[in-house]
Amino acid sequence: MKVYADNAATMKMRPEALEDMNEALQENWGNPSSVYSVGREAKIAMESARYTIAQCIGAKTNEIFFTSGGSEADTQAILSAAAIGAQTERTHVIVSAIEHQAVLKTAAQLEAMGFEVTYVQPDRDGYIDPAKIHENIRENTILVSVMAANNEIGTVQNIRQIGALCQIANVLFHTDAVQAVGHMPIDVSQLNVDLLTMSAHKFGGPKGIGAIYAKSGISLSPLILGGPQERGRRAGTENVPAMVGMATALETSCQNMEEENEKITAMRDKLIDGLLEIPGTVLNGPRDNRLPGNVSVCFKDAASESLLVLLDEAGICASAGSACEAGSLDPSHVLLAIGRSEKEAMSSLRLTLSADNTMDDVDYILETVRKSVEKIR
Amino acid sequence: MKVYADNAATMKMRPEALEDMNEALQENWGNPSSVYSVGREAKIAMESARYTIAQCIGAKTNEIFFTSGGSEADTQAILSAAAIGAQTERTHVIVSAIEHQAVLKTAAQLEAMGFEVTYVQPDRDGYIDPAKIHENIRENTILVSVMAANNEIGTVQNIRQIGALCQIANVLFHTDAVQAVGHMPIDVSQLNVDLLTMSAHKFGGPKGIGAIYAKSGISLSPLILGGPQERGRRAGTENVPAMVGMATALETSCQNMEEENEKITAMRDKLIDGLLEIPGTVLNGPRDNRLPGNVSVCFKDAASESLLVLLDEAGICASAGSACEAGSLDPSHVLLAIGRSEKEAMSSLRLTLSADNTMDDVDYILETVRKSVEKIR
Repeated sequence: MKVYADNAATMKMRPEALEDMNEALQENWGNPSSVYSVGREAKIAMESARYTIAQCIGAKTNEIFFTSGGSEADTQAILSAAAIGAQTERTHVIVSAIEHQAVLKTAAQLEAMGFEVTYVQPDRDGYIDPAKIHENIRENTILVSVMAANNEIGTVQNIRQIGALCQIANVLFHTDAVQAVGHMPIDVSQLNVDLLTMSAHKFGGPKGIGAIYAKSGISLSPLILGGPQERGRRAGTENVPAMVGMATALETSCQNMEEENEKITAMRDKLIDGLLEIPGTVLNGPRDNRLPGNVSVCFKDAASESLLVLLDEAGICASAGSACEAGSLDPSHVLLAIGRSEKEAMSSLRLTLSADNTMDDVDYILETVRKSVEKIR
Repeated sequence: MKVYADNAATMKMRPEALEDMNEALQENWGNPSSVYSVGREAKIAMESARYTIAQCIGAKTNEIFFTSGGSEADTQAILSAAAIGAQTERTHVIVSAIEHQAVLKTAAQLEAMGFEVTYVQPDRDGYIDPAKIHENIRENTILVSVMAANNEIGTVQNIRQIGALCQIANVLFHTDAVQAVGHMPIDVSQLNVDLLTMSAHKFGGPKGIGAIYAKSGISLSPLILGGPQERGRRAGTENVPAMVGMATALETSCQNMEEENEKITAMRDKLIDGLLEIPGTVLNGPRDNRLPGNVSVCFKDAASESLLVLLDEAGICASAGSACEAGSLDPSHVLLAIGRSEKEAMSSLRLTLSADNTMDDVDYILETVRKSVEKIR
């Protein structure tokens, strides 16, 4: 049996997205900056993709800027906010301690550039308390960055409230919504966010494409220099086929969200219940207010490294946490931040489900994990 | 009749590349950072693509770093060289005046950062005299950047000699080879280059993927921050299907290069001869030592804007110059640099051919251009 349960690392492309991208690879391959027919057709496809994506998240079309993915989007969004701050000597930034490395490494670069960064710790379920954000805002704070939902433990943050606090304090608010977009309703018109970042391959779109939502009036600084593409915010020939695939994937995700999430949540809950029956198992993140497909646990005395090998041998694709850090020997910064010991953090298992999974998958995972943990112990 | 003659702006994907990319989109969609089967398979596909690309340009596999395209590659390569220079206060950079905007805008950013930039002018055929590079090298010069072949007028530079001069002077040498790779033999082991940049969609690969060749020992600074992908030089989930498409496109281009270039050069030469028969026409760039598919001319009293509309109406896709600047009202910096007047520069026509074109296309273009120029005059 073959079970893919690492959808937070990457999702297989949705068939609808693959089909539309394929068609665009063959039909809309022109350079959208060109003035002739083939170029104009590519431009129409690009702007239509931009419109669809904007619609799916409650944005205006001209508030969507394409990037090559989530990491580029995070890097550019944060550096852009910092550039705005630098103009008025507002050089203080607040980020949560459980952000993705794309945010944390960019924050570290800001520190190297002379910015001050405050890292706000989560509670034991991974929640960032909006009050803690509030009390750290200073006169010279330019940006708060808190992810919409955590990639490792699935905790869904109260973005709307954090955004409202930032708005009142006149501080820019960025949310890394890479794990949230396409998986839970996101409406920027209701969320008080200034900058929001997303990645297509996390919701069944192609790799190599993502986007920044930048609220009207907020100017992105280009990271990639050259031609005037993306209204001067990102140089380089536009990757129209990937944009088309991204738009279809997001539209399909949003259209099917309610139905799919009902199915996915039921599988997730059965998986959590079953795993917690294994002695010495703790759940990471809250029981309910988590990403629909996310399961994250720590086992007593069952190192992730051994467990993942046994699961792989049994045909189960799972991870200890973030794929970016799969090769790392250090414990997860997220698990440490919610109070796990180093040893516990090295015995984590993340299973992330999609609508392609079945209850049979869940049963098979539970049976295999139980046996594997026993074997390791 | 429909004739696509703007292959320097972007090329239709080679069928072999499209097929391999499609297969990878369906089979190698795993996250290559993951340790399980699906991830390992994606990683193998990625490293095999890297190997193929390295082989095609005479590099070692670990000297190839993927990017999202040519502009990102140029930006990162130049900023990386500057970062190396900044460590030892070598803050002088030399670039040619006819570089692509990705290079020129990055040079401008370096100036804003306190670097000094010398712009070396070309001769009337667009050649950058290696002696001129040599005489501008100073004690504190860290980088010389000269493109392998010009995107507008097709001039092929003496990269090898410029590289040799840089090597002797212990200065880093970058060449933007976006228009050259896949179109003429490029062997970095013979070229004395430290950094070379390329873009897949210019040789029949997909958009959204490119690469930097960085000679062993030269450390790239990451532009996109986050996870440790590309050995810490570029964060973000790797776009494996695009890498696979790029590798196949380059391999196919190199395998067919001799045969295809014979055909393309014959078409190009017929086109040049025919266009030069139109009174008041001058060729931009040298007669022979130019990119196989590149034709660039200026007409007396026939504005590009009007000409391109008439060609488009006749089904011919052509451009005035760089696609990135297709919407610009300013004359081309390349045409001005080789001595054209502003008026001449606003009456340019670039036709760039591929092996998909035919002699019938050439005849049709010649006939249509002749009529259109007459009509405008």
